[in-house]
Amino acid sequence: MASKQSEAVRRHWAAARLAMISPDAEQPDNESWGDLTAEPRGVDYIEVEAGGLPAMWLVPKHGVQDRVLLCLHGGGFVGGSIYTHRKMFGHLAKAAGVRALIVDYRLAPAHTHPAQVDDVTDAYRWLLDQGIDPAHIAFTGDSAGGWLSITAQLRARERGLPLPAAAMPFSPWTDMEAAGASYQTNQDKDPFFYAETVRMLAATFLGEGGDPRDPLASPLHADLAGLGPVYIQVGGDESLLDDARMLDEHARKAGVDVRLDVFPGMQHTFQMAAGRAPEADDAIGRMAGWVGPRLGL
Amino acid sequence: MASKQSEAVRRHWAAARLAMISPDAEQPDNESWGDLTAEPRGVDYIEVEAGGLPAMWLVPKHGVQDRVLLCLHGGGFVGGSIYTHRKMFGHLAKAAGVRALIVDYRLAPAHTHPAQVDDVTDAYRWLLDQGIDPAHIAFTGDSAGGWLSITAQLRARERGLPLPAAAMPFSPWTDMEAAGASYQTNQDKDPFFYAETVRMLAATFLGEGGDPRDPLASPLHADLAGLGPVYIQVGGDESLLDDARMLDEHARKAGVDVRLDVFPGMQHTFQMAAGRAPEADDAIGRMAGWVGPRLGL
Repeated sequence: MASKQSEAVRRHWAAARLAMISPDAEQPDNESWGDLTAEPRGVDYIEVEAGGLPAMWLVPKHGVQDRVLLCLHGGGFVGGSIYTHRKMFGHLAKAAGVRALIVDYRLAPAHTHPAQVDDVTDAYRWLLDQGIDPAHIAFTGDSAGGWLSITAQLRARERGLPLPAAAMPFSPWTDMEAAGASYQTNQDKDPFFYAETVRMLAATFLGEGGDPRDPLASPLHADLAGLGPVYIQVGGDESLLDDARMLDEHARKAGVDVRLDVFPGMQHTFQMAAGRAPEADDAIGRMAGWVGPRLGL
Repeated sequence: MASKQSEAVRRHWAAARLAMISPDAEQPDNESWGDLTAEPRGVDYIEVEAGGLPAMWLVPKHGVQDRVLLCLHGGGFVGGSIYTHRKMFGHLAKAAGVRALIVDYRLAPAHTHPAQVDDVTDAYRWLLDQGIDPAHIAFTGDSAGGWLSITAQLRARERGLPLPAAAMPFSPWTDMEAAGASYQTNQDKDPFFYAETVRMLAATFLGEGGDPRDPLASPLHADLAGLGPVYIQVGGDESLLDDARMLDEHARKAGVDVRLDVFPGMQHTFQMAAGRAPEADDAIGRMAGWVGPRLGL
């Protein structure tokens, strides 16, 4: 059963649903998502421009400088920002004892695929240009950011850049067709992510004539062979549970070293309750423990 | 009439009241106060130790480095932190185009008066030790922090330190006896600050045998002659409206250059809705406009 603190994540998604279907409901602003997260404390926040993108360094007081998490926020490619996810990724950076860089890639509908994957690749190139060793970089992200943590690697490879050491997608969105059986089996548990909602987001993101099976638009249709190790987390009550399972299976078949942890009773991006909910802190701790050795710590 | 966004401040205080009188109500944690405030954006946050205290620099991207607001958070001397007030003071620093330092002074009941005023004086001394000209420093704070923005000057003077250029207390708590008529006249408008609540906070803060008329414990019983200019803001619907008026009158009689702005229909510390409510942004803008010339900008 979800802790009382994790129930706040469910309430967040239920309120977001209500706001979507009822124009009279109070509209939560984009930033309220971040209110789920406690302040990590002991982390500095410094805004920079990274490869032409607005970005923010998260610098734990007691961490190494030369290992970096490139953090890709969720929000269905239409929302989220360096501000909504500052605290959550701050918890992860602090737990891992490394620096993190969150980037504000361009959003749909103003900017459609592949603007997002191009932006993240530019930010990654910027990190390399700062002298950070690719073996000391991991990509991580929630939801749409989980998608980016894989697809931006494919784009980077296309461009001849070295791959990062590892990736940690959590509650990743991987299937633009929303075909997973968990859209049905978890329908009564997930208050927000109905298949039609996700297909609408996919259409917005892909733009006119966009192909949901384009290898760069879906990690499930891409060749993942050669990617570094991948650690996936997902909530057991999510509609997107099968998105995580399919990514796990697809990566495994391609010979990628992959681990999937399903957190029973948890909602989409339950890690946003970091610092408050024991399940979120457990998840953050597992990511930190997993990524350290992959970054040579 | 208060804007819809400023109504969130009233709801915050009503919820805090409910949590206080009903043990079954969901207890908002100390941090939720800060959820009222939008991210200022373009401000960096760097934690430091200042005179032995946990503190945080707020550094606007487009500001001068050599002018500083020493920011003293509210919370009745029992709550609030560098985290709850990070964003609100971030708006003020950004609007004024100067750096700000928030300090975590020790809290009651573990630490009673004069621990708070001593801590802030130590932080001020630390600022001077960094080479900041006192003529380039202003004290500011909300509620209990407004009290500190005056009393810490008195302590600094006792210790032979030069006075800062100016002070901006807003929604200041100045009367430890809670004797202002506005406790009655605004009783139906202010959902939290009942006289007995404020007297309870005062007793906690002053500790056993503490005197609410001790000059250092109440700016209204202190000699304010010689202080730099003071700009006070207060909400028209606050129980503490008269605390602001009495400070204005007392400072004026002492020959201090003082300005008082009453914001009709506004609640205690309505500036916490900065970035969302027009009244809060107006108030922040007025403070920024007032303090610039006092800091030689």
